[in-house]
Amino acid sequence: MPLTLDALNAMSRDDFITALGSIFEHAPWVAEGAAGKRPFATVADLHRAMLDVVEAASADTQTMFLRGHPDLAGKAARDGALTADSTAEQAGAGLDRLSETQYARFHQLNTAYTQRFGIPFIVCVRRHTRGSILRQFERRLTNDAAAERATALREIGLITRLRVDGAVEGSGKPNVNGRLSTHVLDTHMGRPAEGVRIDLFEMQDDGPETKLATTTTNADGRTDKPLIGGQPLRIGVYELRFHIGAHFARRGVPAADTPFLDIVPLRFGIADPEGHYHVPLLATPWSYSTYRGS
Amino acid sequence: MPLTLDALNAMSRDDFITALGSIFEHAPWVAEGAAGKRPFATVADLHRAMLDVVEAASADTQTMFLRGHPDLAGKAARDGALTADSTAEQAGAGLDRLSETQYARFHQLNTAYTQRFGIPFIVCVRRHTRGSILRQFERRLTNDAAAERATALREIGLITRLRVDGAVEGSGKPNVNGRLSTHVLDTHMGRPAEGVRIDLFEMQDDGPETKLATTTTNADGRTDKPLIGGQPLRIGVYELRFHIGAHFARRGVPAADTPFLDIVPLRFGIADPEGHYHVPLLATPWSYSTYRGS
Amino acid sequence: MPLTLDALNAMSRDDFITALGSIFEHAPWVAEGAAGKRPFATVADLHRAMLDVVEAASADTQTMFLRGHPDLAGKAARDGALTADSTAEQAGAGLDRLSETQYARFHQLNTAYTQRFGIPFIVCVRRHTRGSILRQFERRLTNDAAAERATALREIGLITRLRVDGAVEGSGKPNVNGRLSTHVLDTHMGRPAEGVRIDLFEMQDDGPETKLATTTTNADGRTDKPLIGGQPLRIGVYELRFHIGAHFARRGVPAADTPFLDIVPLRFGIADPEGHYHVPLLATPWSYSTYRGS
Amino acid sequence: MPLTLDALNAMSRDDFITALGSIFEHAPWVAEGAAGKRPFATVADLHRAMLDVVEAASADTQTMFLRGHPDLAGKAARDGALTADSTAEQAGAGLDRLSETQYARFHQLNTAYTQRFGIPFIVCVRRHTRGSILRQFERRLTNDAAAERATALREIGLITRLRVDGAVEGSGKPNVNGRLSTHVLDTHMGRPAEGVRIDLFEMQDDGPETKLATTTTNADGRTDKPLIGGQPLRIGVYELRFHIGAHFARRGVPAADTPFLDIVPLRFGIADPEGHYHVPLLATPWSYSTYRGS
Repeated sequence: MPLTLDALNAMSRDDFITALGSIFEHAPWVAEGAAGKRPFATVADLHRAMLDVVEAASADTQTMFLRGHPDLAGKAARDGALTADSTAEQAGAGLDRLSETQYARFHQLNTAYTQRFGIPFIVCVRRHTRGSILRQFERRLTNDAAAERATALREIGLITRLRVDGAVEGSGKPNVNGRLSTHVLDTHMGRPAEGVRIDLFEMQDDGPETKLATTTTNADGRTDKPLIGGQPLRIGVYELRFHIGAHFARRGVPAADTPFLDIVPLRFGIADPEGHYHVPLLATPWSYSTYRGS
Repeated sequence: MPLTLDALNAMSRDDFITALGSIFEHAPWVAEGAAGKRPFATVADLHRAMLDVVEAASADTQTMFLRGHPDLAGKAARDGALTADSTAEQAGAGLDRLSETQYARFHQLNTAYTQRFGIPFIVCVRRHTRGSILRQFERRLTNDAAAERATALREIGLITRLRVDGAVEGSGKPNVNGRLSTHVLDTHMGRPAEGVRIDLFEMQDDGPETKLATTTTNADGRTDKPLIGGQPLRIGVYELRFHIGAHFARRGVPAADTPFLDIVPLRFGIADPEGHYHVPLLATPWSYSTYRGS
Repeated sequence: MPLTLDALNAMSRDDFITALGSIFEHAPWVAEGAAGKRPFATVADLHRAMLDVVEAASADTQTMFLRGHPDLAGKAARDGALTADSTAEQAGAGLDRLSETQYARFHQLNTAYTQRFGIPFIVCVRRHTRGSILRQFERRLTNDAAAERATALREIGLITRLRVDGAVEGSGKPNVNGRLSTHVLDTHMGRPAEGVRIDLFEMQDDGPETKLATTTTNADGRTDKPLIGGQPLRIGVYELRFHIGAHFARRGVPAADTPFLDIVPLRFGIADPEGHYHVPLLATPWSYSTYRGS
Repeated sequence: MPLTLDALNAMSRDDFITALGSIFEHAPWVAEGAAGKRPFATVADLHRAMLDVVEAASADTQTMFLRGHPDLAGKAARDGALTADSTAEQAGAGLDRLSETQYARFHQLNTAYTQRFGIPFIVCVRRHTRGSILRQFERRLTNDAAAERATALREIGLITRLRVDGAVEGSGKPNVNGRLSTHVLDTHMGRPAEGVRIDLFEMQDDGPETKLATTTTNADGRTDKPLIGGQPLRIGVYELRFHIGAHFARRGVPAADTPFLDIVPLRFGIADPEGHYHVPLLATPWSYSTYRGS
């Protein structure tokens, strides 16, 4: 049962620290520092106050804090030695299902990063797919130390914003979720296409695709709920596959045994986890188009 | 060196039979029957005359002739016991690279077909991919014997039309080749998109995709030669993949690290091996469309 | 102030007849006949009961009733001798602003129609434009008498349904209104196009266009309210003109002095007055598309 | 009968001056100056040599030369006092068919221009429509004298390039012509749309449209010859109107009495008179798109 902001504002200092002590990884002192700033008018204010504690800390304390974070797909993860939050977050991005090659790549990058910066690589994995984590990792290895430290703190802001969002109910919650939706128009008949099966896949450059969802369009050519909603959209490459050949066959459109269009793939990237991506399909048996809509 | 129609019209009866004896599988009597109909005005007339010999033959002779054809992906193929033409034709469709499961499926279908119809399954494999051969096989097993015999003879007409086309030069050659072409328009700049890498794949329902070609668009947004040309288009499902993200990056269009469009796949079916399929891409960084063009 | 269905159900028979006596043109007997069927559960039931009275009347009574309707754009209209409802309805379709030529055409058609069928030409003008009325007129002149009488009664059903809808509040009101909406997507930027001026015109085959509305898109690329709403869409031909050149100029897209796209017209027909027509524009400086959406 | 470059190279100096004396308006000294530079390898070289004579002339001579040009739509034009070339060129742009208001506007601009710059306004009218001439006129009035003199000489280069092109046959002719083409694809049937009537109009901001051409698509959905070809495309705004409703009706597609799409207008600007504008239409009964193609 989630905490409420009102309850957090009213409870004792010790209870407050207990309640929020695990939001910042192995750093109950962050909650401790924020306890005295109560009451908070909004959930966003609470989170801001906690970040202020981190930013006001000495460089040494910050370094210790950053060092308290686990390696991604590292030994601690394989040994089950992560916090509950970290375990769930790494699994959600598929980091618990890496091939041996991928583990080896992460190990190599973790080692290089720690040697270069003296801290573990920190990224808000709930906003990422495996592929985008690896790209980030490689890019950030080329940063200088100051830029990289700022990036790590910014990622901690994103990680803990999601944790606060999940843990605390109340007004003034920040928008942490994105939305992926679609819409199928049959421009052969001039109507929404009903009953079209849609599969959604996460694509990997160097590995197999992962099916994320299968759904069917309703009478308005839309899906009853977003393809992805109620969570950040993970940065990555996706493919929607529309079974449009079966739709036109049901509508009685004559087609060859191998129709020109059968399963139509739309491949697109998501770069903004908190954004709304509307990716519609307009199709006839002989043509189709798509666009980023609104 | 190909024969010419003029030479065939002028040569002795025996030479004519030797020259064309292998066009119809193990049936030099077909060439023998056509020899007396010379001279032929066109290559198509020559082929027509040979088909007339087959059609005029007795039912028993036809049956013997049909039985002279090899099983697809059968024991003879694995043992290297096919005619040169059959070997090349079966390999071209990928029948020499089947998995054990696929061999087993062909074996099963060959057995069922022969038991049901008393003849081997005959199809013009040069007009097909593995997938479309299997679909044909399954559908034709449900035919009645008369319809299936007519189908087998029609396929022999297609097989031998291609063999005659390859063997004989002269006027009046039938159109046996199809063409697959594309065209990339950058509707962000209002110009043909030059330098776009395009990969063409043959797709399989139940197996890995096969890359058929990689090319790059020229200054007119087209490819210097057709993606497929000078042969029948094999019935099947294909995917063109356009590296459009790299194009817009080269043009200096600002994009996220994970652009909305990077590699755009267009998946389509080819049903008409002798047709022209023009499958263009019109793209901006945020939208694209395709259609069967001309 | 509109009547309510509850009040109509509760009032005296005489008051009911007074209240609804003018819904059917010069025929208070229709309200009289429906008075005894009260109470009505829905507004649609009330209208249905009144139509039943007309349908149950003798052929002679029906003929008299039909003859009680005025000519379209006829002498009565020019002399101001129509009922208030008829005057407003004919003006709404622009029948009070005809050229002399158009008046002459209507006069000619009215004469031919009355001679042929013995009744005036009746059409629900609130669902029509001048052009579609003329097309109906010409087509219906070719009907036989029985078909045409049925058509006239069907049109009276549509006329009075709208009158009842305007006069009576209550539950169960039929859907008598259509909606025309639009949406502008800038597929050059991948965003809704804000601030785009849109003009809506009614087109005539043989006369000048009439501007119906001018509006501007909001931040979502839509208009704050439908282009047409709260009334039937008049059957006819329309043109939306989008000032898209000015939009791209404001966005800083380089363009020639005479840009390729400046004002984009979309011309379309409306055939279903109670339907929803969504006619979006997807545009770059070099391309655009539209479709009947939902 | 056009002159040939070879003949011009071979003829006497006097004949050369007679032959080309009228290319530069009232300035036979230009041909005279170029006569000694013979022989010319290409027609472009001949034209270049004549321009060099103008550019090498003294400022006073140039001014006299520029003053030798007639006003656009001026008194000389109305009195029939122009050279044959100028008369034809001004008529081609419709300057002989101006309304009194438009004449008055030209008169006003001519006066303002001459007062400001001491020379008449010179523009290559064969590359313009009335509308674009007026826009140029208004814009160039804001130039400074040096920029405007350079512009006038550049326009004379364009005028005389076209005159030389029309007068002289030979190798190395510059590209002076543009091309407007179209293409209609029926994406409902997946085929080129044959037999579609197309009308081409020149649009004016403040005046009636002018029909330039009516044509019909051939079996490939194209027109047998370009909509405009063999001449410069005049800078201006155009509208193509495709009678697509009649096409779908002929194909048996069910449609309402007022179809959603009947006559589809595509409005576009031409800014580059020597360019190729390909403006195709892709249409179903419920959607269409266009783009600047190649």
